[in-house]
Amino acid sequence: MELTIKDIHQAHKRIAPHIHRTPILQSQLLNQMIGCELYFKAENFQKIGAFKARGACNAVFSMDNASLQKGVITHSSGNHGAALAWAAALRGAPCTVVMPENAPQVKKDAVAGYGAHIELCEPTMAAREGTVVRLISEQGSTLVHPYDSDVIIAGQGTAALELLEQIDEPVDIVMAPIGGGGLLGGTGICVKAQSNARVIGAEPEQAKDAWLGLQRGERLAEYSPNTIADGLRATVGVRNFEVMRETVDEILLCSEERIVEAMRLIWTRLKVIVEPSCAVPLAAIIDQPEQFQGKRVAIILTGGNVDLDSLPW
Amino acid sequence: MELTIKDIHQAHKRIAPHIHRTPILQSQLLNQMIGCELYFKAENFQKIGAFKARGACNAVFSMDNASLQKGVITHSSGNHGAALAWAAALRGAPCTVVMPENAPQVKKDAVAGYGAHIELCEPTMAAREGTVVRLISEQGSTLVHPYDSDVIIAGQGTAALELLEQIDEPVDIVMAPIGGGGLLGGTGICVKAQSNARVIGAEPEQAKDAWLGLQRGERLAEYSPNTIADGLRATVGVRNFEVMRETVDEILLCSEERIVEAMRLIWTRLKVIVEPSCAVPLAAIIDQPEQFQGKRVAIILTGGNVDLDSLPW
Repeated sequence: MELTIKDIHQAHKRIAPHIHRTPILQSQLLNQMIGCELYFKAENFQKIGAFKARGACNAVFSMDNASLQKGVITHSSGNHGAALAWAAALRGAPCTVVMPENAPQVKKDAVAGYGAHIELCEPTMAAREGTVVRLISEQGSTLVHPYDSDVIIAGQGTAALELLEQIDEPVDIVMAPIGGGGLLGGTGICVKAQSNARVIGAEPEQAKDAWLGLQRGERLAEYSPNTIADGLRATVGVRNFEVMRETVDEILLCSEERIVEAMRLIWTRLKVIVEPSCAVPLAAIIDQPEQFQGKRVAIILTGGNVDLDSLPW
Repeated sequence: MELTIKDIHQAHKRIAPHIHRTPILQSQLLNQMIGCELYFKAENFQKIGAFKARGACNAVFSMDNASLQKGVITHSSGNHGAALAWAAALRGAPCTVVMPENAPQVKKDAVAGYGAHIELCEPTMAAREGTVVRLISEQGSTLVHPYDSDVIIAGQGTAALELLEQIDEPVDIVMAPIGGGGLLGGTGICVKAQSNARVIGAEPEQAKDAWLGLQRGERLAEYSPNTIADGLRATVGVRNFEVMRETVDEILLCSEERIVEAMRLIWTRLKVIVEPSCAVPLAAIIDQPEQFQGKRVAIILTGGNVDLDSLPW
């Protein structure tokens, strides 16, 4: 594995002037309810409202000017698209985002708001990738993949880097949800290099391609997720699967019902707006509480871009 | 006016070990939309989810043990009740909260959760006060009024004290909504003593008893509010009216529609859960933007105790 903690430190130095150092949130009442000490890294307060700003910013600020002038392109169900649009705008580069037709309107608006061009396609991974390939051959633009890329994984790992600095005492467990595996991959590299904490990923039962892949010892190339956690519908990437195999101790699953319950708990107890994806680690803890009792557990809240007109309760 | 900045400093010293020093939130996108630099003091992150923890804590920690043993009592449509229940529990004192039958369930649950006894009554100020008087004569308990009291006003003023310390450059305007006038009264005393900023109160058009009172030069003893901002339905107190006359530069009004719009803006841009009452100052700015353009404006977000099953959109 070539990707190391050095890459994450370099990424952090590169992106720190542009991103927020998001706070750690806690709730005594929530801790009492769950039976462990929870630390939430609030990436819903991050630029563009999600951790994806970290990876996209690292990618764009790693590029040379000649490539940037031809533009960047990506496919995304939402937050990575907004992140790349935002990061490209910081360097004055053209940006195209291929989005599935069924992406939440609030995420389409965000991408458009940062001045990127949106190209809609059918909501399948094949259609997304096909459209990207076609546009790259037409435009000569550079693909910034939403997760299957070292520069993205290193960028996403900076959230865990800050988290370990911000919490005074050593944590026992660090958790993140799994979509394409960019966040959990970067988190795994960082946490294993900097601490003795366990790294636990969380997935909806109805989007458990990473869990299945690790069980079988082989990444699933295709999988049809069906979860409310719209940020976790991507299939784990090739590079991400390799990194997760080496750095992730365990993946826990949770039901859709529990995701909604955990999301409400975060909203009402922490008083912050988070996406359903953010609630997946807490949902997994509620479903399988044993190993968490009395432990210090850090959870990365991934984003807060929610359509207030279609809440899940 | 006997109440001074010294009382607020003393209150802050008294309550600081028990309350949160809540953060200041900002959003560049929101600032661009509104055309001024907004600083939000996030009292929705305060103990019990609202600034009311400050005044109640100051009241309870100002009492002697003999009085405390007979208990404290109050009437409240919600947050002050939870605040007094919480503060009383810190000192092991019995607490009774008289609540209108139509108070949000989430607020009743909070009061009960801190171990206080709830006494329900009709949703009129007369019924609330009548019930309190009856129970005091039965129990010998001490009334901790939700707003019409120097010790409460001084406690609520500590939010502005922190706010002025937390914002690096001097602010031009400090705003708070007006329910009974505890928060705005304390804010007025503090801001006038510590800065050159204007102090502006904000009220719903459908709960404008403070605005009418200041227009007429006389406090309204009775008024029937009809606003979504459930935290602002109280009638301004006697002491509060005196303090506001001396320290508040202006009161601005806003429509119910605009309150909902401003609340959504805070939810989506700041990613925090706030009550409708919190949105009233921003709603007033949106309705009357002239004097705010290009200014540095601090707004106290009063609380975040919302019933997620009955959101106003």
